[in-house]
Amino acid sequence: MYRLLLCLLLLTQLAHADDGYRLWLKYDLINDIPRRTAYARSAQFIAANKPSPVLQSAVTELQTGLQGLLGKAVPVVAQSGSRTGGIVLTVAPSGADVQGLNDEGYRIVRRQNNIVISAKTDAGALYGAFALLRHLQTGQPIDQVSLTSNPKVKLRMLNHWDNPNGAIERGYAGGTLWKWYELPETVDPRYRDYARANASLGINGTVVNNVNASPRLLTGEYLQKVAALANVFRPYGIKVYLSVYFAAPKTLGGLKTSDPLDPQVRQWWADKVNEIHRYIPDFGGFLVKANSEGEPGPQDYGRTHADGANMLAAAMKPYSGLVIWRAFVYKADPKADRFKAAHEEFTPLDGQFDPKVIVQVKNGPIDFQPREPFSPLFGNMPKTPLGIEFQITQEYLGFATHTVYEAPLFKECLEADTYVNGKGSTVAKVVDGSVHGYRNAGPTQTLMAGVANTGSDRNWTGNPLAQANWYAFGRLAWDHTLSSDAIANEWTRMTLTSEPQAVKRITNLLLKSRDIYVDYNTPLGLSRPWTGVHFAPEPWQNNSSRPDWTAVYYHRADSVGLGFDRTPTGSNALAQYRPEVRRQWENPETCPLPYLLWFHHVPWTKPLSSGRTLWNELCTRFYTGADSVQWMRREWAQVKSAVDPALFADVSGRLDTQYKEALWWRDAWVLYLQTFARQPIPAPFKKPDRTLTDVKKSVDIYLLR
Amino acid sequence: MYRLLLCLLLLTQLAHADDGYRLWLKYDLINDIPRRTAYARSAQFIAANKPSPVLQSAVTELQTGLQGLLGKAVPVVAQSGSRTGGIVLTVAPSGADVQGLNDEGYRIVRRQNNIVISAKTDAGALYGAFALLRHLQTGQPIDQVSLTSNPKVKLRMLNHWDNPNGAIERGYAGGTLWKWYELPETVDPRYRDYARANASLGINGTVVNNVNASPRLLTGEYLQKVAALANVFRPYGIKVYLSVYFAAPKTLGGLKTSDPLDPQVRQWWADKVNEIHRYIPDFGGFLVKANSEGEPGPQDYGRTHADGANMLAAAMKPYSGLVIWRAFVYKADPKADRFKAAHEEFTPLDGQFDPKVIVQVKNGPIDFQPREPFSPLFGNMPKTPLGIEFQITQEYLGFATHTVYEAPLFKECLEADTYVNGKGSTVAKVVDGSVHGYRNAGPTQTLMAGVANTGSDRNWTGNPLAQANWYAFGRLAWDHTLSSDAIANEWTRMTLTSEPQAVKRITNLLLKSRDIYVDYNTPLGLSRPWTGVHFAPEPWQNNSSRPDWTAVYYHRADSVGLGFDRTPTGSNALAQYRPEVRRQWENPETCPLPYLLWFHHVPWTKPLSSGRTLWNELCTRFYTGADSVQWMRREWAQVKSAVDPALFADVSGRLDTQYKEALWWRDAWVLYLQTFARQPIPAPFKKPDRTLTDVKKSVDIYLLR
Repeated sequence: MYRLLLCLLLLTQLAHADDGYRLWLKYDLINDIPRRTAYARSAQFIAANKPSPVLQSAVTELQTGLQGLLGKAVPVVAQSGSRTGGIVLTVAPSGADVQGLNDEGYRIVRRQNNIVISAKTDAGALYGAFALLRHLQTGQPIDQVSLTSNPKVKLRMLNHWDNPNGAIERGYAGGTLWKWYELPETVDPRYRDYARANASLGINGTVVNNVNASPRLLTGEYLQKVAALANVFRPYGIKVYLSVYFAAPKTLGGLKTSDPLDPQVRQWWADKVNEIHRYIPDFGGFLVKANSEGEPGPQDYGRTHADGANMLAAAMKPYSGLVIWRAFVYKADPKADRFKAAHEEFTPLDGQFDPKVIVQVKNGPIDFQPREPFSPLFGNMPKTPLGIEFQITQEYLGFATHTVYEAPLFKECLEADTYVNGKGSTVAKVVDGSVHGYRNAGPTQTLMAGVANTGSDRNWTGNPLAQANWYAFGRLAWDHTLSSDAIANEWTRMTLTSEPQAVKRITNLLLKSRDIYVDYNTPLGLSRPWTGVHFAPEPWQNNSSRPDWTAVYYHRADSVGLGFDRTPTGSNALAQYRPEVRRQWENPETCPLPYLLWFHHVPWTKPLSSGRTLWNELCTRFYTGADSVQWMRREWAQVKSAVDPALFADVSGRLDTQYKEALWWRDAWVLYLQTFARQPIPAPFKKPDRTLTDVKKSVDIYLLR
Repeated sequence: MYRLLLCLLLLTQLAHADDGYRLWLKYDLINDIPRRTAYARSAQFIAANKPSPVLQSAVTELQTGLQGLLGKAVPVVAQSGSRTGGIVLTVAPSGADVQGLNDEGYRIVRRQNNIVISAKTDAGALYGAFALLRHLQTGQPIDQVSLTSNPKVKLRMLNHWDNPNGAIERGYAGGTLWKWYELPETVDPRYRDYARANASLGINGTVVNNVNASPRLLTGEYLQKVAALANVFRPYGIKVYLSVYFAAPKTLGGLKTSDPLDPQVRQWWADKVNEIHRYIPDFGGFLVKANSEGEPGPQDYGRTHADGANMLAAAMKPYSGLVIWRAFVYKADPKADRFKAAHEEFTPLDGQFDPKVIVQVKNGPIDFQPREPFSPLFGNMPKTPLGIEFQITQEYLGFATHTVYEAPLFKECLEADTYVNGKGSTVAKVVDGSVHGYRNAGPTQTLMAGVANTGSDRNWTGNPLAQANWYAFGRLAWDHTLSSDAIANEWTRMTLTSEPQAVKRITNLLLKSRDIYVDYNTPLGLSRPWTGVHFAPEPWQNNSSRPDWTAVYYHRADSVGLGFDRTPTGSNALAQYRPEVRRQWENPETCPLPYLLWFHHVPWTKPLSSGRTLWNELCTRFYTGADSVQWMRREWAQVKSAVDPALFADVSGRLDTQYKEALWWRDAWVLYLQTFARQPIPAPFKKPDRTLTDVKKSVDIYLLR
């Protein structure tokens, strides 16, 4: 008995030392004994016939999960036969069980006192297994379980901006997960846990390298390494994709050109695609950043994006792989409006892309700002499947120190109405194909991609709460109709605590976090996509090799006012939207305040719908935003007893940093803008303790090597 | 009982999932019950009076360790009183117990049926506590325990080449351990485990940033972060040091110069040192790389290294901190011999350095090659304390993929005889002060530094076996008389297995690994300190901004032969050694084969003492070296049942990569050198399957971005 106690004591200690590695797949013992008993009664065995590797993953996950949740081993049987009280996995291409399911959907029902998970494919069954586990992890009743779910988008992908040297561009959670120098011989067990986490959300594709692509990845040497990853991911229904360097025929192949219409170039790519498939028979395809921010592309040879994409699609023709072509392009033209660039370059190409091509469009027209209106490309390329690209990693959202739950940002874009086919033509419905009917276009596909926030940090995402963003992206890629609230609630219960008050408090904190961030960082439609110091406020930055890489290009502060005039008196970018959208946003009186400075150069003294002048409203946002981080800290302090102590301390420290930096952003902006507005900080706010020079000095630290 | 079994089962599973995080401080339950019982009888309590923070660390570590090893909690009592059967920690500046101990030494004896750990300082007691735990971990008898140990060198330090952006220069185990953007508010629990691991070896100092130093670290912003680390390390007897950027007075202070004789510059440093001490009252001091590889330094203003170092020493005068000035300098002179540079620049300055200055010298004259003769500076600066700098991270020793146990490399240098005070004047005795009597020079110090191989990888060092190098460095810094064999054996038993045959096998594998590496990488005194692709063989590399950054500068292959003539007919670098050393090495007949090509340009056809010609001996080394990696794989396969399965697989994978790359190095060298030697590969070796062009192409992959 003494040993039992000791043993339990040790277990408790181990359980307490929660380092975040397990993510939302914790599977801790259910403490509610009646519930645990009820679950155990319904999970006396797991039945699956001759499991394929993917189905085996489902079985193994159920075993692992049930062992943890119920505290006992659940046996696996070949078939249920007449046995009841267990979990039965069935896969059949047709039949009543799978009616209404698409290829990856699942249905979970009670039948003959078993829980039956049905799907048309092994992958569907795998998603069903994870859904059942989620059901138990979140404490739902098991007796009348009845769940049917179909993914709304076919390709649900992570994009890793990971470089072969081990660094991650815009990564804030350590270095790359992929240990390139050790692959293929050494296969980190972590790769499997990565695949499990993704599969639990329904993510079925991963681009393992940066869109600013190294040609290394296309060499045989590296393809062997990529194949080793693909072998780990395959049993979890995840395909591997590669970002490609468009000039590879010259760099690797020794050709004189990489012109997409050159026969030798076309042959080189065809050969390369063949070679890739020798290593990775189910290769997912290519992701391409071309003629963007210095990357090579078809325009280097006077060809179009469609020429480039179609050339790669032709090489991919013998296989199932796809070509995902990014629409993130803009020219270094001081007179142009970067906002308009992608629309201008891509809409004329609509209809010219090979059916294997998907164009991947960032959610907003510029670059993953804390708040952007939706990209006007959505709805304006009816003949081209448009995938959407979100950024999960917090490049502009406070890195690993600021807590920003991103589901509201994703949802704001997905639910925005393009009006292309009348009211209700939301971005989500463009992306999932229901507006333009991509679904019927044969080999074409629907796509939602997220730039990953994972890294080598033990807890994967640096900030423990940033795991919620990976989670939310995956859940929304599966079903964009889920609410931000429901996802936050679900994640919190699976990951942090089941204590109801704490769940409520944390969910609420998460839901408010993005607006709080926007308020102290870029309120009222300000933006800050300039290069330079990503870690620090720099609204005064006006010196770069390109005008659109300065801060002043975006905010356009002057003695009159603030904001970028994109109405007909300015760049007229608003003309890229449908009239229903344009009319509302074009009028400063009806333009929603969150987008105001995206579209209007507004005088400092102009009264806004809030009743305050622009200057006073800006100050109010900056100050209340920063003050709200104090509120976040207080809320977090309230959940101390309900969450793991190490995790509590970790998040507390990050919220302290966030508060310090919220004041930094606030002071940088208000002191800088004050040099134009020439007005005092309005009561009840107190002017910053520091001067603009002080703030600049503190920012300059981050410019040092 | 069922629950007990389940519980034990789970514990066993958890214990099996060994991710290497715990290093050699595993404290797993001792399975040998008689031994465990005997230990438990002698460890019924831990007694320590009013523990200071450092003593508290000793107590906590004993508690943690004993809890794990014995499987039961051991109570802590204020004083032993008349109790017996426990562990008593006593600290007293004088008395019989501490006779013969230096400030950090310890003595462990049995007295009155207690185990008494005595020391003059709390740090000594902490080292004693770790020594006692090591004694138990390695299964030594407890009844007549009697251990006395004094560190031979005062400053035992790690140098971290970690940059503020999170990357580690020459790091192969992930990114930096220091989460700069999250500090000081978020303090990773890992920092404490880092301190524990170092303290367990007696390491008492750490330079947290790269010698190619960012001035950021000297700003108040970053000093707060460094102070947060210092607060964690202090209770483990570890002081924090900073690498400094010599031009900081200009860069940070806005001065017009960083001339060390300029009064404003001197004042700036004095103020900066004061500021640092406000954050870190027990600051360890500065490490400086100046006028080396493009770094700024005093020579930019016509001043000497002594002027620069003494200026910093003057700034440090009010405090206990030191100035550690690196001797790693060499000029871009095509006619010069880089070998001679440090000796030429530094010996004339002997006697000119402030007593607060230590000059830190790399073990060899060039740059951490797989094998180098000892640096001729050792013994030739009798008035200047010379610290020794080893490289633990495997920049030239195969990164995280090749298994190379470094203790034999460290020992080869430490035991080399300089003959400066006659026979027995080893490098170790120069460094520990016994040759030149630094010990009596008041504030001067003795120093051994190791460039760390730690990173953010879960197991700290990437290759699990590379933990042995961190361990070996620390143990030798404490006591350079320990044998490579004893250290390997001790580390293996604490870290991998206690199974005697496996211990023997792994120890043997480790001991042979460095010579095997040298054989396939740089045999007979070849070297490869060129920049370019550190990951790949490139002996043909002959194009760089500096001649001494090419490969051909070092090996000097031509139609006649191979090697760098450093005799009087060549650069005469040998004149920098004492006659006893020089005479042996100057004569190609008596020069040991391992150093032959360091000192002689040897004709391809010359018969060596082995009976083979140079060419045949080279081929024999390259081929048998690579073949020996096969032997390492077979040996490792034999220990499968004795080590953790995940760790076994991890090391197996790395050995596979090592074999692949050993063939790569072999083929690159022999095919390239063959173009000069114009001789066939001698029997029984078969010529490589690939051509030199093939090898070059495979190397070129690593030159791609």
